Amino acid sequence: MSLHPDRLAVAQMGPNNRADSRAQIVERHIALMEEAASAGAGFVLFPELSLTTFFPRWLIEDEAELDSFYEAEMPNDGVATLFSRGRELGIGFSFGYAELAEEAGARHRYNTSILVDGQGRIAGKYRKVHLPGHSEPQPRTFQHLEKRYFEPGNLGFPTFPSMGRTFGICICNDRRWPETHRSLRLNGADTIIVGYNTPTDHTGHASVDALSLFHNQLSLQAAAYQNSVWVLGAAKCGVEDGSFMLGQSMIVAPSGEIVAQARSVADEVIVATCPVAETVPYRETIFSFEKHRRPECYGAITAPR
Amino acid sequence: MSLHPDRLAVAQMGPNNRADSRAQIVERHIALMEEAASAGAGFVLFPELSLTTFFPRWLIEDEAELDSFYEAEMPNDGVATLFSRGRELGIGFSFGYAELAEEAGARHRYNTSILVDGQGRIAGKYRKVHLPGHSEPQPRTFQHLEKRYFEPGNLGFPTFPSMGRTFGICICNDRRWPETHRSLRLNGADTIIVGYNTPTDHTGHASVDALSLFHNQLSLQAAAYQNSVWVLGAAKCGVEDGSFMLGQSMIVAPSGEIVAQARSVADEVIVATCPVAETVPYRETIFSFEKHRRPECYGAITAPR
Repeated sequence: MSLHPDRLAVAQMGPNNRADSRAQIVERHIALMEEAASAGAGFVLFPELSLTTFFPRWLIEDEAELDSFYEAEMPNDGVATLFSRGRELGIGFSFGYAELAEEAGARHRYNTSILVDGQGRIAGKYRKVHLPGHSEPQPRTFQHLEKRYFEPGNLGFPTFPSMGRTFGICICNDRRWPETHRSLRLNGADTIIVGYNTPTDHTGHASVDALSLFHNQLSLQAAAYQNSVWVLGAAKCGVEDGSFMLGQSMIVAPSGEIVAQARSVADEVIVATCPVAETVPYRETIFSFEKHRRPECYGAITAPR
Repeated sequence: MSLHPDRLAVAQMGPNNRADSRAQIVERHIALMEEAASAGAGFVLFPELSLTTFFPRWLIEDEAELDSFYEAEMPNDGVATLFSRGRELGIGFSFGYAELAEEAGARHRYNTSILVDGQGRIAGKYRKVHLPGHSEPQPRTFQHLEKRYFEPGNLGFPTFPSMGRTFGICICNDRRWPETHRSLRLNGADTIIVGYNTPTDHTGHASVDALSLFHNQLSLQAAAYQNSVWVLGAAKCGVEDGSFMLGQSMIVAPSGEIVAQARSVADEVIVATCPVAETVPYRETIFSFEKHRRPECYGAITAPR
């Protein structure tokens, strides 16, 4: 059986509880990867922070304890079997992780995602630009301390030609901001991949939180249609260390139509055939950027705050 | 009975056939305005090019014939009764028209929309930025010659404090471009009003055109959610001079939820209560632009083509 480059998979993941070992979590990745490959997929997307629990829900003041959630190298021994199994199967993949980077002699923390091709080579890397939440603990059951534990990404919105298409990567809250997807499209993406961990109490306004599923769907469908791109969304979901996170992983066509959607809040693979050619009717007509965009009118969007 | 400033109406219009007189068309506006006022609405939105047929569907080579579709002054005698009835009722309104402007001694043509307050005063004006279609006739039943008959708007994306809220205006194809709504929001809008004429054969790709209703809805819902604004959409629709245009006029809350939607492709008024305060939970949390936007990363969006 050979893998098809146009056949793409999303590996939704149920919870990574804090008590789970790295080996257990990586084994789940491998099982999902094998399922994707057995369905003929040439690529599989895992969620944001797919190697750990969503630790920004806690205030962690001990630096060594905090470091334990980060990867100082990638790949590393803890994920070696994932890389080697991908290479054996010839399947590309992408996953998110907390990155501890040494830059200009200083330590930096990022919320990062990498793209790996079917030969196990890292083909791209993105660091989350739109960090949600807060930097100081709030009076709430679960914190959302991404602004405390990560710096905003410093790689811009790069895109990566690989596996017969051009990938753009974004992460979780990035998907709600049209600037993300527009930048990726303008930089060449035909396929945007986004992993997320979305607790359903994330704003603290019940009227807003009640619409979490609708907003996830609207954001991904709008991203696809407004930019004539394929969009793959992969959730880490279910009750993770007591916090409920939404599932609803999906694959969205350039038309904005959902072509595959997860039905559980557990480990689950969804697959669709996603030809880049389906972007063309939109790019040639209503969304011909050359003919219709008016960048000289958009100055407010890049004006400093 | 007094009109409520938070109660807003959309007056969807059925076809304006070429044979219809200006007086007939304005009478229909007035009947719709009266219905909106009787429902307590303090404002009513009419469609794009609400005074004429959607003439860009034809190649018109005679300059005088073409001029007959344009307004050289606004207000003018042909719409005086609409302005005076609005003033009597104390209802604000907005409508679109083809504008023939004299600027620096030259004639210019724009696809324009104005905002009129409850005292009959013009409170704002917008000229369509994103002109769709083509400038040369194509081998198709109905043309879409907006690029021939109009210049791109030269007023940017202004907003207008009036009637207790801040209006942003856009027109038809503008609604598909996230830059439009983002610019209006950044310029202060809490309420975006958009009129449209959307023929259901507009791209010539059956697979795209078949989704016209879905794309209209997705564009308006995304605009509202992504920018925490109220969105009012008003269609001119039904079979106009042989061409079918979609209806689906709607009012969308800042949550992205549709709170009122037209059910016909004829003259029809829909009304909803639209408190500006409903924008706040979004603007204070997930879409706090001050906390979360990263304009320094968005350079691709304003880069010259």
